[in-house]
Amino acid sequence: MTSAATPAYRRLTVEERRGQLLAVALGLFAHRAPEDVSLDDVAEAAGVSRPLVYRYFPGGKQQLYEAALRSNADALNRCFTEPSAGPPTERLGRVLDRYLAFVDEHGTGFSALLRGGSVAETSRTSAIVDEVRRAAAEQILVHLGVERPGPRFGMLVRTWIAAVEAASLIWLDEGKQPSARELRDWLVDHLVALLAATAASDAETAEVVKRLLAQETPEGPVATLARRVAPVLGGAARLL
Amino acid sequence: MTSAATPAYRRLTVEERRGQLLAVALGLFAHRAPEDVSLDDVAEAAGVSRPLVYRYFPGGKQQLYEAALRSNADALNRCFTEPSAGPPTERLGRVLDRYLAFVDEHGTGFSALLRGGSVAETSRTSAIVDEVRRAAAEQILVHLGVERPGPRFGMLVRTWIAAVEAASLIWLDEGKQPSARELRDWLVDHLVALLAATAASDAETAEVVKRLLAQETPEGPVATLARRVAPVLGGAARLL
Repeated sequence: MTSAATPAYRRLTVEERRGQLLAVALGLFAHRAPEDVSLDDVAEAAGVSRPLVYRYFPGGKQQLYEAALRSNADALNRCFTEPSAGPPTERLGRVLDRYLAFVDEHGTGFSALLRGGSVAETSRTSAIVDEVRRAAAEQILVHLGVERPGPRFGMLVRTWIAAVEAASLIWLDEGKQPSARELRDWLVDHLVALLAATAASDAETAEVVKRLLAQETPEGPVATLARRVAPVLGGAARLL
Repeated sequence: MTSAATPAYRRLTVEERRGQLLAVALGLFAHRAPEDVSLDDVAEAAGVSRPLVYRYFPGGKQQLYEAALRSNADALNRCFTEPSAGPPTERLGRVLDRYLAFVDEHGTGFSALLRGGSVAETSRTSAIVDEVRRAAAEQILVHLGVERPGPRFGMLVRTWIAAVEAASLIWLDEGKQPSARELRDWLVDHLVALLAATAASDAETAEVVKRLLAQETPEGPVATLARRVAPVLGGAARLL
């Protein structure tokens, strides 16, 4: 009666036990702010003793929090990976779908982390968050075919990423309204609009927009946005 | 020889002394991260003893930091106040000029605060920063003539404010390139582009854009942007 069918009685390997504790911690940090999760909570949820948690994470809650954050950062980086095929705005839409699913799942912990002011926040946790932001920016550059962005284009990309973070937090605050799908479309439109506005005064961005337009389809996000914006801007005709 | 002409020998009132210590602390926090400012630094820069600083700020450095932050938040809120006259995009340009002058002056301290991970950061300091964000959002709503924004429009405004913060931090990182004037113009263009893109799928935003366009002039930011964007989007004609 000690077969694999009764895993509760099987002794876990070091790696398995560490993974189990981390998975439990990830679940708790996803639904509560770090200050609202104690080591006792982790021990209880994992069905183990507090000293056992300490044996695997001698740095206590802070170490567990940072390991959970590391694991989440890796998961987010995986979300950003997308094959370089099809119109870039559609690739971006798929990345945003995966990103918003992550935000949806890790709501409270995601908010606590990005909002700052948490007791668990240190220069180390900030560095992990910054690394995710950098990975996101690099992926955007890859898909837009830009190797070394000039200052204006680099600022555009990083600024849009900040806008996505802010929109995600607001979305969580507002009970996940509008739907993830509408939010995703709006975030794509936001980037397209920002690219167009920046192209107006920056040659590098104008080149990027030219290449981007060449890859778009008449049913894609750019064409749809252009068709919908045209009547809104009708009132601008007298200005031109 | 104890006239007002020899202020070094005049005993300061409680309010004056508190104001002097705060002014000194503001100067130090503007140019260094909070963890790099000690109470001794404040005492030395003010030409007083460390116990005297403690008499006015019994909570030590954290209290002084929060008082400095409060003072900066008030200064920022004053930046945002702008008469309701002339095209709203030009009003916004003037507010951004004042805001960027503030960022320019308080560079290091401003970065440390917004970047998070500072030891001086608490839920109280985060609340002060959020209050400034809310004040900024309220002023934008006032100038765009919106009393109770719907969810999409509210998200647009708060998202743009996050983008402005991110752009300010990048600007400081990049040695204040491009010029404050170019950055201001780009931030105005960013908001206009975002308004246009959002108007494409949100009726409230479409109404705001309509009112905004009615107040713009042929030489203003919206018309200038529209003239410059038109050739960039020439490549989109085949999509429509």
